[in-house]
Amino acid sequence: MQRNTTPCYYTDYLQLDKLLDSQHPESKKYGPEAHEEMLFIIVHQAYELWFKQILHEMRAIYQEFNQTAIPDEALGRIASRLERIKAIQKLLIDQIQVMETMTPLDFLDFRDYLVPASGFQSIQFKEIEIMLGLKSKFRINFDQASFYQRLNEKDREHLQGLENEPSLFDCVEKWLERIPFFEYGDFKFWDAYHDAVNKMLDSDQAIIENNDYLSDNDRAFQLKDLETTRASFSALLDKASYEQLASEGRFRLSQQAMLGAVFINLYRDEPMFQQPFRVLTALTDIDEHFTTWRYRHVIMVQRMLGSKIGTGGSSGSDYLRQTTENNRFFKDFFSLSTFLLPRSALPELPEALKKALNFYFHPAD
Amino acid sequence: MQRNTTPCYYTDYLQLDKLLDSQHPESKKYGPEAHEEMLFIIVHQAYELWFKQILHEMRAIYQEFNQTAIPDEALGRIASRLERIKAIQKLLIDQIQVMETMTPLDFLDFRDYLVPASGFQSIQFKEIEIMLGLKSKFRINFDQASFYQRLNEKDREHLQGLENEPSLFDCVEKWLERIPFFEYGDFKFWDAYHDAVNKMLDSDQAIIENNDYLSDNDRAFQLKDLETTRASFSALLDKASYEQLASEGRFRLSQQAMLGAVFINLYRDEPMFQQPFRVLTALTDIDEHFTTWRYRHVIMVQRMLGSKIGTGGSSGSDYLRQTTENNRFFKDFFSLSTFLLPRSALPELPEALKKALNFYFHPAD
Amino acid sequence: MQRNTTPCYYTDYLQLDKLLDSQHPESKKYGPEAHEEMLFIIVHQAYELWFKQILHEMRAIYQEFNQTAIPDEALGRIASRLERIKAIQKLLIDQIQVMETMTPLDFLDFRDYLVPASGFQSIQFKEIEIMLGLKSKFRINFDQASFYQRLNEKDREHLQGLENEPSLFDCVEKWLERIPFFEYGDFKFWDAYHDAVNKMLDSDQAIIENNDYLSDNDRAFQLKDLETTRASFSALLDKASYEQLASEGRFRLSQQAMLGAVFINLYRDEPMFQQPFRVLTALTDIDEHFTTWRYRHVIMVQRMLGSKIGTGGSSGSDYLRQTTENNRFFKDFFSLSTFLLPRSALPELPEALKKALNFYFHPAD
Amino acid sequence: MQRNTTPCYYTDYLQLDKLLDSQHPESKKYGPEAHEEMLFIIVHQAYELWFKQILHEMRAIYQEFNQTAIPDEALGRIASRLERIKAIQKLLIDQIQVMETMTPLDFLDFRDYLVPASGFQSIQFKEIEIMLGLKSKFRINFDQASFYQRLNEKDREHLQGLENEPSLFDCVEKWLERIPFFEYGDFKFWDAYHDAVNKMLDSDQAIIENNDYLSDNDRAFQLKDLETTRASFSALLDKASYEQLASEGRFRLSQQAMLGAVFINLYRDEPMFQQPFRVLTALTDIDEHFTTWRYRHVIMVQRMLGSKIGTGGSSGSDYLRQTTENNRFFKDFFSLSTFLLPRSALPELPEALKKALNFYFHPAD
Repeated sequence: MQRNTTPCYYTDYLQLDKLLDSQHPESKKYGPEAHEEMLFIIVHQAYELWFKQILHEMRAIYQEFNQTAIPDEALGRIASRLERIKAIQKLLIDQIQVMETMTPLDFLDFRDYLVPASGFQSIQFKEIEIMLGLKSKFRINFDQASFYQRLNEKDREHLQGLENEPSLFDCVEKWLERIPFFEYGDFKFWDAYHDAVNKMLDSDQAIIENNDYLSDNDRAFQLKDLETTRASFSALLDKASYEQLASEGRFRLSQQAMLGAVFINLYRDEPMFQQPFRVLTALTDIDEHFTTWRYRHVIMVQRMLGSKIGTGGSSGSDYLRQTTENNRFFKDFFSLSTFLLPRSALPELPEALKKALNFYFHPAD
Repeated sequence: MQRNTTPCYYTDYLQLDKLLDSQHPESKKYGPEAHEEMLFIIVHQAYELWFKQILHEMRAIYQEFNQTAIPDEALGRIASRLERIKAIQKLLIDQIQVMETMTPLDFLDFRDYLVPASGFQSIQFKEIEIMLGLKSKFRINFDQASFYQRLNEKDREHLQGLENEPSLFDCVEKWLERIPFFEYGDFKFWDAYHDAVNKMLDSDQAIIENNDYLSDNDRAFQLKDLETTRASFSALLDKASYEQLASEGRFRLSQQAMLGAVFINLYRDEPMFQQPFRVLTALTDIDEHFTTWRYRHVIMVQRMLGSKIGTGGSSGSDYLRQTTENNRFFKDFFSLSTFLLPRSALPELPEALKKALNFYFHPAD
Repeated sequence: MQRNTTPCYYTDYLQLDKLLDSQHPESKKYGPEAHEEMLFIIVHQAYELWFKQILHEMRAIYQEFNQTAIPDEALGRIASRLERIKAIQKLLIDQIQVMETMTPLDFLDFRDYLVPASGFQSIQFKEIEIMLGLKSKFRINFDQASFYQRLNEKDREHLQGLENEPSLFDCVEKWLERIPFFEYGDFKFWDAYHDAVNKMLDSDQAIIENNDYLSDNDRAFQLKDLETTRASFSALLDKASYEQLASEGRFRLSQQAMLGAVFINLYRDEPMFQQPFRVLTALTDIDEHFTTWRYRHVIMVQRMLGSKIGTGGSSGSDYLRQTTENNRFFKDFFSLSTFLLPRSALPELPEALKKALNFYFHPAD
Repeated sequence: MQRNTTPCYYTDYLQLDKLLDSQHPESKKYGPEAHEEMLFIIVHQAYELWFKQILHEMRAIYQEFNQTAIPDEALGRIASRLERIKAIQKLLIDQIQVMETMTPLDFLDFRDYLVPASGFQSIQFKEIEIMLGLKSKFRINFDQASFYQRLNEKDREHLQGLENEPSLFDCVEKWLERIPFFEYGDFKFWDAYHDAVNKMLDSDQAIIENNDYLSDNDRAFQLKDLETTRASFSALLDKASYEQLASEGRFRLSQQAMLGAVFINLYRDEPMFQQPFRVLTALTDIDEHFTTWRYRHVIMVQRMLGSKIGTGGSSGSDYLRQTTENNRFFKDFFSLSTFLLPRSALPELPEALKKALNFYFHPAD
């Protein structure tokens, strides 16, 4: 690294001449400028700046993930970048409060000039969705039918090209499938896990059956619940059942990847799994933040537009509401807790495996 | 007011001996204390403290609202207290992020000890809901069927008593119905409004029909949308149509109250309507914050419990999800924007009425 | 208002071609792009976008304030716009958390290329400061000596021109000076206030002198404090004392304006003072938010740069620390509480005056 | 783990009978209850609940840190708990916004009844400070002189006992001093570091001396700055200089601990240092959050009390202001950036050392 040899000026560095000359209210073309249109423009531009930053981080994360073996040095970096995305998402959510200082009556002053522009047309946001794994086939009908045909040639080709590349979802899935410790010497983890699950559920069943304080109704309810739990565990471990559930849309990750994620969650205290656990947590948080942002958006649009149509000619808040649940990227991670065992019931890992999961150098040695 | 004559000590004043001795983890009864149970207790206790504060404010607001004529001095106070409730709600929402530092695996260490306790049993939160206007008949089936029978005698009677009193919703509705300026001398506001609406929609229609850039499809779409808009306005102004929609659950406020709310929104700049507008906005925000809080809660529960049942034996996240949309208090205010006119199309109020809406003293006089 | 006749597209409307092509990392000129420089650029660009929005609101507020009589219709609008500025400031503060996801080691990868660019060079932020009333003479030495000479000709002239116009501070001061009700018929408010103050302080003194539980030390302490309080009240009411304190920098508002602010605070429940009180509160909040933002900035810079110098060649965090306390706009409003009386001790306003402060139309009449 | 055999009820579990009966406004003793006193009580009680939670986490962290060798399994847990404290601190900071919905005039309605109670008397907060390392000798005079004598016997002894135990600061210092890799085989890290520093500074000096664009003034300024930087690095590496600076209060950590912290920061990407880096970052954030909280507090108190004295008889906002800078726990970590080198200038670690810092098991092997 070296010092620069020509001076760097703030205004030039940030290209403020361009940046601050990019706000041209549409209302001005038809009469006096609507005071509130500036806010509308700037809120959306701020979104786009942050989308650019999110994409910048996602591409860097993708490059590290998209290798046959991810070096351990990389995981801390990946986790930090995912956590940065989370920090940015909080801003995106908080920005809604700024937008909401604009009242519906204010919005009416320029709303009709914007037809048919709509936030649904943000190319960068679609890029984020596609990179995270939301390919066309997962989109709701409205998007499938009308999104691509509204784009110009260049943007359409750009996004369709992106759909053909592996997404971050795909890379994460492959990484989880590679987790190597399910069998280590004589130790077969999933057998031990299966035994532990059965032992726990049998003991639960005995308690419920013998608990005198329970009414018959409550006992029946709890036993039925136990059966559901038993069935959930079986589905995870049985390839055929899992694939059946996956085909019904209950899972998107492969069984092997899901098992990897469960394993990391159960043994997250082992040094080698501390960062992978942090990465999984961050991916789950990112999914949660996006769905929160969409939900806040739904409510804001509902309030701003009432039962009229959105600026893009679509049925605004209804469309958005559907996407809150449909456009989830890592929803499978929200099911992980179904497959966890309390630490007290967890199979103990053999010493050799514990050593393998620890550092080469041991101060205590 | 006078000075106190005996000294006041911090620890005694805040009754910290009681407050800080109210955390007794259930896990300790069955073995070593689960470290994370303290967080679970304290998060819920903090919620309850804030619920107490919200109720304190709501009762004060209710007392001011529950008069045949609300003195103008009171409106600023009401608005400030509503805004305080908003500030507290933001804390409630932010607290979820603290709760989420507990992972599902941590929760497993004590979850089963809590059966059948559940957050659905917060009496204070039910009080808040009832005071805001969510009477039993509006609740989803689960609540209707099972909520009251789980309570002990005392709590059940307390809540049922509360249901029989007018709620804040009722008071707000009455207050809006009393807005006195729809007819002032010869001026009949709703006739003028009706004319303005028709004029605006006719002009829109002409533009759409003559706009050559529109495809036939788009033109048809826009004309159909115009018809919907026309129908919405008619429904507001026609008593029979309105009541039909109300009986279908589309509105909860009476037509007269809805008209009052529209009027305040349209003329919110008039001095006399500045505070009422602020009050309506705050009520809308409070509704929005509660639904946001519920939604965040849904996602957190989904993540914590997976597809297992909630601690209260109910189907956790599904139940909560239903309440996000059902348990809305002032959802009608989210439809107001449907009935607004751009300021440029708004009927001008007669001078005498404008004067009536202003202050007695005029510096310019 | 009319519908637009040519369609409006999202990407064009927001000028995304320009906006998203304004990020050109300096590091790229000297070698491989430093990954983190993008964040640095985007954080600062987002600041600048929001500064533009703040200026947009401030100019609108200024126009309403800068009249010989502010119509009552305007005050609600002014308050809402000030509250929007507050909402934006919260974003500015929250953005620091995003910036802090960049570690000092990351910053080193490109820091030296930026010399001598520095955030101190944001023209828009200086505009905000000047419009709020921070003229050169109030700035700390560093700013006075070196700020203007670093600017290019155009920017320097622009800012100096702005300094010669009345600021928002000036307009607010004039508005407060005009508050008309200090004398109304026979009623002389400040005499009544003076009497009330003396009565309250005399009663306090008697209590302290006769309170047996107090140690001699504590009694002396409390009596001394009472004297200070008495002196504060005198200073407010006596023109000469006030001007003396003002010349020492203890006050910036004129005595007349300060009296106006005290009056509004004391009688804020009267309908006519509800909005002015909201305006004063918002101005105080804005001052508080800016000082908070500066403080968070100080700590971040301290952490990022250690004891090295800032990117602009100035002593970074020390400079910023001085500005947190010096560059306050409405610090006088933080002293208002010194001059308040408990409601129970407040002089009752005569009926005629109360009527003048209420609305023309009274439902009860 | 086993299921509970007796049911657990929400209200009993949270001890709501006690919790919700701990709010007894002092104003009620002297007349009608001041409406706003409830908020004052609840805000402070919520603080105390969260302080209890912070202490709960700190004790668990302390137990893990207070061992001669911290097992690697523990570091992820420590980092998570520190991050939970951060999440709670954000709530503490946000709570100020709720407190600020109370205006100074409202506070006057009950302020005098609270004398001499004061937030400075929170025993739990003092415990947090002491556990973090703020022993009496580091406190400002006001605290040293008057804090302990105001406490009752029991509380005084409790806190003084705590002062005699090693604090978290002490444990962190010892842990950093134990970092074992400064010499590894032939490799002497600090020699390599010293060389790298000199090489970088010599190159910088040449550039500055030969840069024609620089004015003589600027060149002199930059060269002087370079000397300061050189001196900073020397001070770190030279025991005598370091101890001199430490005795002047410039450092609180021992030189050996500071070197450990620098090393972790420089090589944080190595698997073994990823969690230690996360721990250091979290400790730094916690310090930053506390100082932010104090600062927000200063401003709020200034606004609430004006220039009058605080409720505890101390000079409120001035006292608090001093503590923002004095009561820092890990301020040394804010100087770390002074001692970092850009990655490009960093000494390469020998292969054997890199292996020692990685995991025992290598997928690639």
